[in-house]
Amino acid sequence: MADYSALPLALTMGEPAGIGPDLILNLYANRQANNLPVFAVYGHRGFLAARAARLGLSLAIETVAPEEITDTFGRALPVIDIAGTVDDTPGQANPAAAPVVIGAIERAVEHCLSGKTRGLVTAPINKAALYSAGFTHPGHTEFLAALCARDGVAPLPVMMLAHEHYRAVPLTIHIPLADVPAAISKRSIADSVRVIDADLKSRFGIAHPKIAVTGLNPHAGEDGTIGREEIEIIIPALEALRAEGLDIAGPLPADTVFHPPHWAQYDVIVAMYHDQALIPIKTIAFDAGVNVTLGLPIIRTSPDHGTAYGLAGTGKASPASLLAAIRLADTIA
Amino acid sequence: MADYSALPLALTMGEPAGIGPDLILNLYANRQANNLPVFAVYGHRGFLAARAARLGLSLAIETVAPEEITDTFGRALPVIDIAGTVDDTPGQANPAAAPVVIGAIERAVEHCLSGKTRGLVTAPINKAALYSAGFTHPGHTEFLAALCARDGVAPLPVMMLAHEHYRAVPLTIHIPLADVPAAISKRSIADSVRVIDADLKSRFGIAHPKIAVTGLNPHAGEDGTIGREEIEIIIPALEALRAEGLDIAGPLPADTVFHPPHWAQYDVIVAMYHDQALIPIKTIAFDAGVNVTLGLPIIRTSPDHGTAYGLAGTGKASPASLLAAIRLADTIA
Repeated sequence: MADYSALPLALTMGEPAGIGPDLILNLYANRQANNLPVFAVYGHRGFLAARAARLGLSLAIETVAPEEITDTFGRALPVIDIAGTVDDTPGQANPAAAPVVIGAIERAVEHCLSGKTRGLVTAPINKAALYSAGFTHPGHTEFLAALCARDGVAPLPVMMLAHEHYRAVPLTIHIPLADVPAAISKRSIADSVRVIDADLKSRFGIAHPKIAVTGLNPHAGEDGTIGREEIEIIIPALEALRAEGLDIAGPLPADTVFHPPHWAQYDVIVAMYHDQALIPIKTIAFDAGVNVTLGLPIIRTSPDHGTAYGLAGTGKASPASLLAAIRLADTIA
Repeated sequence: MADYSALPLALTMGEPAGIGPDLILNLYANRQANNLPVFAVYGHRGFLAARAARLGLSLAIETVAPEEITDTFGRALPVIDIAGTVDDTPGQANPAAAPVVIGAIERAVEHCLSGKTRGLVTAPINKAALYSAGFTHPGHTEFLAALCARDGVAPLPVMMLAHEHYRAVPLTIHIPLADVPAAISKRSIADSVRVIDADLKSRFGIAHPKIAVTGLNPHAGEDGTIGREEIEIIIPALEALRAEGLDIAGPLPADTVFHPPHWAQYDVIVAMYHDQALIPIKTIAFDAGVNVTLGLPIIRTSPDHGTAYGLAGTGKASPASLLAAIRLADTIA
C-alpha cells in the first residue's frame, strides 16, 4: 500500500500569460520557508523555465513521470510536461498555448482519478483564450466536472470559498444579476445543499454540518413585503432539507449573517448569488481566500483571484491565495 | 447669536415596543461615561418613565421647552413631550401609539429646520404600526424628506452607511432583488452621486470627494459578458459625472472594492443595491455602523439596526450603533 501522505498534489499551471506560473515558481523557489507539500506542475517545461528566468529565479526544473514526483521535488520542480508550444509573453494571451493549458488540466484530473496524485490545485485560466481550441465549457469548474463524468453523467460541482473556518457558497455564480431570481429553484437549492452537507462531512470531517442559507431579497424579504422568493422557493426548499435531517438555518438576512461572530456559528453560509458570497469573503480575506470545489470525486482547490495579466511576469503578485489553496488541498486530501 | 456648540441634538424615541427607548435611556443613564452631547428626546414622558423603571434605571425625566434642553440635561433627561397615549408593552406594537411616534418626528424636524436644535438622531420605527394612523410613506427617510419639502418639493434623500472612514451608499434599498436592474438608471445614479458629492463637501469637510461606484453584475459585467447594465447605464452615467468635474472611479467589481485597504482609497463607495452595500459595512462593523441621510437640509443620523422587538425591555440590546449615530451627528453638526 502506498504511503498516502507521500502522494503528491497536482498543480495545473493555468493561463501562461497570467500570474499562475509566476506564483507557482515563486512558491517553489521558497518551498522550505513555505513548508510546501510535494507537488508536480502540469504544464510546459520550456515555458516554465523561460518564466523562471524572467523572474530571476534560479531553479532546476525537470520533466518527470508521476511516480518520480516525490523523489524529484527536493532538488527540482517536477513537471508533467504537456506537448505543445507556449511562448513566454506575460499579459498577452496566445491561443496557440490553449492545447497545453487544456491538456494540463485533462492530465491532472486523470492522474487524480487514477490515484497517482491525491488532489488538484488549479491556477487561473482565461476561458476566452481557450475557445479557439474548442473549449466549450462555461468555466474551469464545469470543465473539471465534465472530466470527472461517469457513464456520461457529470457530477454537480459546487464552488465554496473558504478562509480559515469561514466558508461561503454562491448558489449562482457568473450570471447577470437580472437572471439570478429565475435561476433559483427549490431543486437547485436542495441539490447544492446536499452536496455541501455530504462534502463537509466526508472531506472536512464535520460530523453534523451547520448550514445557514441567506435570503435573496433585502432582510430576507421581510415576510414577503420585499419579494416573494423566500416564501415561495427558499423556505420550502429548506424545510424539505430539514426533513432529510440536515441542520439548516434560514433564510437569513444576508447583511447580518456574514458578520464574523455570526458567520462563525455556522460551518458554511449558502448565498443566493455571486456578490452575496464573494463580498464578505473578500472583505475579510482578500488575498488568502481559497476556492474549493465540492461535489467532485477528486479534491480540487484554487486561488480566488484571476489571471491578473497586468502583474504577470513582474514577480509582484501575492502568492497568499495559491499558498492557502495548496495548504487546504494538503489538509483535506 | 446663539452658542452653536451648546445647541442640543434632537433624538426621536422611535417605536415604543422596540429597543429605541431602551438604548436612549441606557445611554443617558451613563451620559458621563459615554461623554454624550446635550440632547432632548422627542416622545412621551410617561412612557419613557415607565420603560426606565422596567429597565431598573433610576432617572429624572423632565418635560421641557426647546430652550430649556441644555440647562436641564445635566440633572434630568429632557423630553419634548408629545401628547397621546403610549403603553409600555415591549415587543408588542400598539397602533394607539402611532400619533405620538409620528408627532415626535414631525416636531423634531420642525425644531431642526427652525434652528432650535442642530441635528436629528432617529431611533427605529415600525412602519406597519403607523399605517393605521395614516402614515403613507415608504419609509422613515422618505417621511423626513417630505417634512423637509419646500414649495411642495421634497429633497432627494440618500442613505449612507458609515463606520469610521468607511462609507457606503446603496443606490436602491428596500426593493426586491428582481426589481433592482430596472430601478437603476443614468438619472438615478447621477442624482444620487451629485447629492453624495455635495454633502461630503459641505457636511464632512472633504474638499474633493473620491467616489467609487460598483457594477451591478459579478465582476462588473466583465466587459458585457455577464450583463449589459454596466455598458448601457452605469458607464455613461459615470462619464457624465466626470464631465461635471466629479472624481469617480468605476464601475468596479463589488467583491473586491470593499476589501478595507481598497475601500480606504475612496471617501465613499456607491453600490447598486441593499446587500451590496450593507453586507460589507455590517461585516466590518456590525454594531457600530451609522446611517446618515444625505440630501436633506437638516443633519440626520440613525443606528443601522431595526426595532429588535425580541430585545425590547430587556436591557440587553447594544447601544453601540445609536451611540455612534449620536457622535456622528455631534461631529458633523
